[in-house]
Amino acid sequence: MTRWLTGFCLLISLPVLADLQLKRVEPANWWVGMHSSQLQIMLYGEQVSGYQVNLDYPGVKLVKAERVGSPNYLFLTLNLAKDVKPGLIPIKLSQGEHVALVYDYPLLARDNASAERQGFSNKDSIYLITPDRFANGDLSNDSVPGLEDKLNRAALGGRHGGDLQGIINHLDYIQAMGFTQIWLNPVLENAMSSYSYHGYAATDFYRVDPRYGSNALYQQLAQQAKARGIGVIIDVVLNHIGSQHWWMSDLPSADWLNFAGQFVPTTHRREALHDPYATEWDKRHFSDGWFVETMPDLNQRNPLLATYLIQNSIWWVEYAGLSGIRIDTYSYSDPDFLSQYTARLVAEYPNLNMVGEEWTLNPSIVAYWQRGTKRHDGYQSALPSLFDFPLQAAVVGGLTNQENWNSGLREIYLSLANDYLYGHPQDLVVMPDNHDMSRIFTQLREDPQLWRMAMVLFATVRGTPQFFYGTEILLANPNSDDHGEIRADFPGGWPGDKQNAFTGNNLSTDASSAQAYMRKLLNWRKTAQAVHNGRFVHYAPLDGSYSYFRLSEEHNLLVVLNKNDQAIKLDLARMQESLKGFTSAKEVLSGQTAALPDILVPARSAGIYELYK
Amino acid sequence: MTRWLTGFCLLISLPVLADLQLKRVEPANWWVGMHSSQLQIMLYGEQVSGYQVNLDYPGVKLVKAERVGSPNYLFLTLNLAKDVKPGLIPIKLSQGEHVALVYDYPLLARDNASAERQGFSNKDSIYLITPDRFANGDLSNDSVPGLEDKLNRAALGGRHGGDLQGIINHLDYIQAMGFTQIWLNPVLENAMSSYSYHGYAATDFYRVDPRYGSNALYQQLAQQAKARGIGVIIDVVLNHIGSQHWWMSDLPSADWLNFAGQFVPTTHRREALHDPYATEWDKRHFSDGWFVETMPDLNQRNPLLATYLIQNSIWWVEYAGLSGIRIDTYSYSDPDFLSQYTARLVAEYPNLNMVGEEWTLNPSIVAYWQRGTKRHDGYQSALPSLFDFPLQAAVVGGLTNQENWNSGLREIYLSLANDYLYGHPQDLVVMPDNHDMSRIFTQLREDPQLWRMAMVLFATVRGTPQFFYGTEILLANPNSDDHGEIRADFPGGWPGDKQNAFTGNNLSTDASSAQAYMRKLLNWRKTAQAVHNGRFVHYAPLDGSYSYFRLSEEHNLLVVLNKNDQAIKLDLARMQESLKGFTSAKEVLSGQTAALPDILVPARSAGIYELYK
Repeated sequence: MTRWLTGFCLLISLPVLADLQLKRVEPANWWVGMHSSQLQIMLYGEQVSGYQVNLDYPGVKLVKAERVGSPNYLFLTLNLAKDVKPGLIPIKLSQGEHVALVYDYPLLARDNASAERQGFSNKDSIYLITPDRFANGDLSNDSVPGLEDKLNRAALGGRHGGDLQGIINHLDYIQAMGFTQIWLNPVLENAMSSYSYHGYAATDFYRVDPRYGSNALYQQLAQQAKARGIGVIIDVVLNHIGSQHWWMSDLPSADWLNFAGQFVPTTHRREALHDPYATEWDKRHFSDGWFVETMPDLNQRNPLLATYLIQNSIWWVEYAGLSGIRIDTYSYSDPDFLSQYTARLVAEYPNLNMVGEEWTLNPSIVAYWQRGTKRHDGYQSALPSLFDFPLQAAVVGGLTNQENWNSGLREIYLSLANDYLYGHPQDLVVMPDNHDMSRIFTQLREDPQLWRMAMVLFATVRGTPQFFYGTEILLANPNSDDHGEIRADFPGGWPGDKQNAFTGNNLSTDASSAQAYMRKLLNWRKTAQAVHNGRFVHYAPLDGSYSYFRLSEEHNLLVVLNKNDQAIKLDLARMQESLKGFTSAKEVLSGQTAALPDILVPARSAGIYELYK
Repeated sequence: MTRWLTGFCLLISLPVLADLQLKRVEPANWWVGMHSSQLQIMLYGEQVSGYQVNLDYPGVKLVKAERVGSPNYLFLTLNLAKDVKPGLIPIKLSQGEHVALVYDYPLLARDNASAERQGFSNKDSIYLITPDRFANGDLSNDSVPGLEDKLNRAALGGRHGGDLQGIINHLDYIQAMGFTQIWLNPVLENAMSSYSYHGYAATDFYRVDPRYGSNALYQQLAQQAKARGIGVIIDVVLNHIGSQHWWMSDLPSADWLNFAGQFVPTTHRREALHDPYATEWDKRHFSDGWFVETMPDLNQRNPLLATYLIQNSIWWVEYAGLSGIRIDTYSYSDPDFLSQYTARLVAEYPNLNMVGEEWTLNPSIVAYWQRGTKRHDGYQSALPSLFDFPLQAAVVGGLTNQENWNSGLREIYLSLANDYLYGHPQDLVVMPDNHDMSRIFTQLREDPQLWRMAMVLFATVRGTPQFFYGTEILLANPNSDDHGEIRADFPGGWPGDKQNAFTGNNLSTDASSAQAYMRKLLNWRKTAQAVHNGRFVHYAPLDGSYSYFRLSEEHNLLVVLNKNDQAIKLDLARMQESLKGFTSAKEVLSGQTAALPDILVPARSAGIYELYK
């Protein structure tokens, strides 16, 4: 039996008593005026489950205190009245008459505009950054005492020193390039012994990894980005943790992890979730299977864990003022949990955007998860967006494959023609590549002309485009598709770099020219209203060219991809229903104008034609 | 002005008057007791539109007489009371007081069981026959006076002399092989100057081509087949006619054909019908475009034509006692017409089966047309079945491609896993090939072991299997995929043939052995209740093998395809949920029995294991 002392309280910092220490209180704070009146607080401390809980704060009620498998956890559920005031909620932990601890839990004031924040949208272009590989703005945190995985730039899978300060330092560059959102691969603590730079093995859900900076610096990054019109998208991992997560030495309950905490690999066969003939074996081994032994798979069917994860995302959005959430390995989490997660997030932030990663080329499976999709079962989802992996593959195939009945540019056309499968195809995030696949320049056989065609397509097709850092300077991975090679250090991000993409110093002519092309394209896109919300209309490709329109009241575009080795004159007769009333066109990137019948699209290029009456 | 005489009547045969000749009355008869009370009769004769129409028959009302562009047509709509009696309806054509003609229109008695006939189903195996290429049972009709395209066996695209009598002569063979349905490529008159043997260019919707036989012989074929438990499926072409169809010299109306009767090719881009971004140009050039100049495309938006086509199908089902309809080039017809067509057919024959040809590998597009499918738009369809082209391609890829993440046997698994897209996936028709593609033996690289695996799969997977004549003796098209080579003469079908597949004479060992394998497989299938309606359950392929179950109360199967060069012992532990309670298994084709844990599947083979408790 533990002994206890009469309680006293410490403000904010964790109280230490002889007998009752709270090692963790998560979330560390909450806010007044949230949409949901419920708040779950996880208390972690030796034998904390042996204490009774009381609290006395106007507008706050303790609904329940739940005990789980480990005696060192106590999960409190509080009800917060609509009109509750900011302040410190005294959470009293006692045994019988003896108060062991009063923990003052901070309830903060909330920014008025918080709930109504506008998430990323079709008006935006997203820049995806792998923080360890973009820019090293603070050499002092390259290695951090207590964190085993130290700086090792020579290793493809080692930590290279990039950090939040590096990103802050180059926000001007990002802004000048025309990006209006940044998505960072996860920056939460990954206190893994090795191979920790990617960030997908969190060991603390509430702490930015010190090698990247701090929670405060992350908040600052978001603020400084916002000052430049740039939003920040957080990369959330709901499916798994790192095997060195602090939970692992003292799991709250036996069902906290899938397969009872034993490593059983996932089959990656997501089809089993939809397949009418799937066995329980195939479903379970997809959903509950682990990615790798170092990433224990979370069982979100546990309602305490489910709420923990939901609140964690809300906490970061609220704390750092974020504009969106990218959800890793989306379909690997429990489907009912995902319904609940997306519904809760949308209830808190009706205009926040969220994009799920469902990496399959089967569009009906991608579509399944999007809100508004007509499903074969009764599944409910509030997820606004997914990555359009089918289109990614179709664009690469479309540009590199021979023109044939179902190949070449027709692959792009056919991929988009599948959009009837989606509830809201215009809300998808489209991308030439990402951190998990070969760089687009490599996929396009290092052909700068195909690269330009791809960039134009992704910048003007329906959806919100996302570009991986370095795409703008033709970074490639010619030697292997090792992730470390794909996620190469951005030139200029490290002291002493010979090439500097920020200043343009020593960049190859091709890279400089690509960068300028992209800068022009994305800056034009910022105000290109037809791209943001113009009606998309396309024509089945013919003779090696693909034409589509973006049509709106004020702004109208014709985009043409010409794969031929010769310039082509378009068959405008076929397109009369889209061209009605227009008499002239101006190509956006070259500035050239032409009377409509005389549009000549140069060989192996993309043209963006603004149409005028 | 035409002169006319006082009317008199001829019974049934076409009446001839000095001034009013009816060259065509279609349909030539109808039946009492049909579900629909309406009957449309097309009268064709010089200036027939200039006559008034009257009739006097108990229970029959003339609803309207419609005149169209050509003065030589008159479309009558009759209403038939529920209790109308069989007999001759006197259709009186007159001008003023003068009756020019009384045409006695036959209203026949109807077989009681007609409406409730059972169409083909999962209990059946369908044998697809190209009538010109199966067996020449009547040498006297090889060439027919007045029909330009004469016998020419030397030409791949010429007429080879096969006919209905040839099929009748070999119904015993078909029955012995285990087939329970035959689908003939169209047998209607194709009075085209050349390349007429395929049958898809009809020149008369109500007449069997004399080179195949006669309407009466077709009726006889269906009766003799029925006596052997074999149903007959008619191949209906709704989309187009032959350019030498009798309509072509005197079109009923300007809108009878698409593109005003001018040849404009179809784009074959069926995606345009579903694509949210499709232009009217792409939609029209798919639907209204013609296959070839010799096949004028019908405009089924014309309601008279629509009714004509619907009644024509009903007429053949009723006249010949058919068990199903195969609908050619399904999606190329007007979608609203197809709704109407399928609804009318199902209303007349609730259990008749109909299978549409929608040749695309995109399952969501195939599924779109099936009844019960959840669609993105409000489209209504009563079509029970479609051909499973995606599965066909998946099986060929699955058996011939290397085993990889998404290739090899996984292609088959993934194709079936897409079944959530269909309203009734179990009602699809599955097939290793058909008359329009390379023979399955060629697609499977002439590998008899892969061929056996394919046959087992199609005979035991969900759906109704269809096999192309000659598949059972490994017919191949090694030299080209010319349709004439694919649709080779069946050995033994012609006098003097050196090989005879009916008797087995001079067949190669491989062909004989394949034929015996197929005979055993399909005869077993006839009573294999688990295949007919057992629940389908499958496991994601592992290590080069694919296992699925068909489970029902009384009969249970495990089917395994093993692509490995070695025999394998199954990982039954993974399959416990499907194997619960079973202790032993009997392989259906070899007759070998084994205790369950000891199932050994030989190298490169398929096993069908009946499971016992």
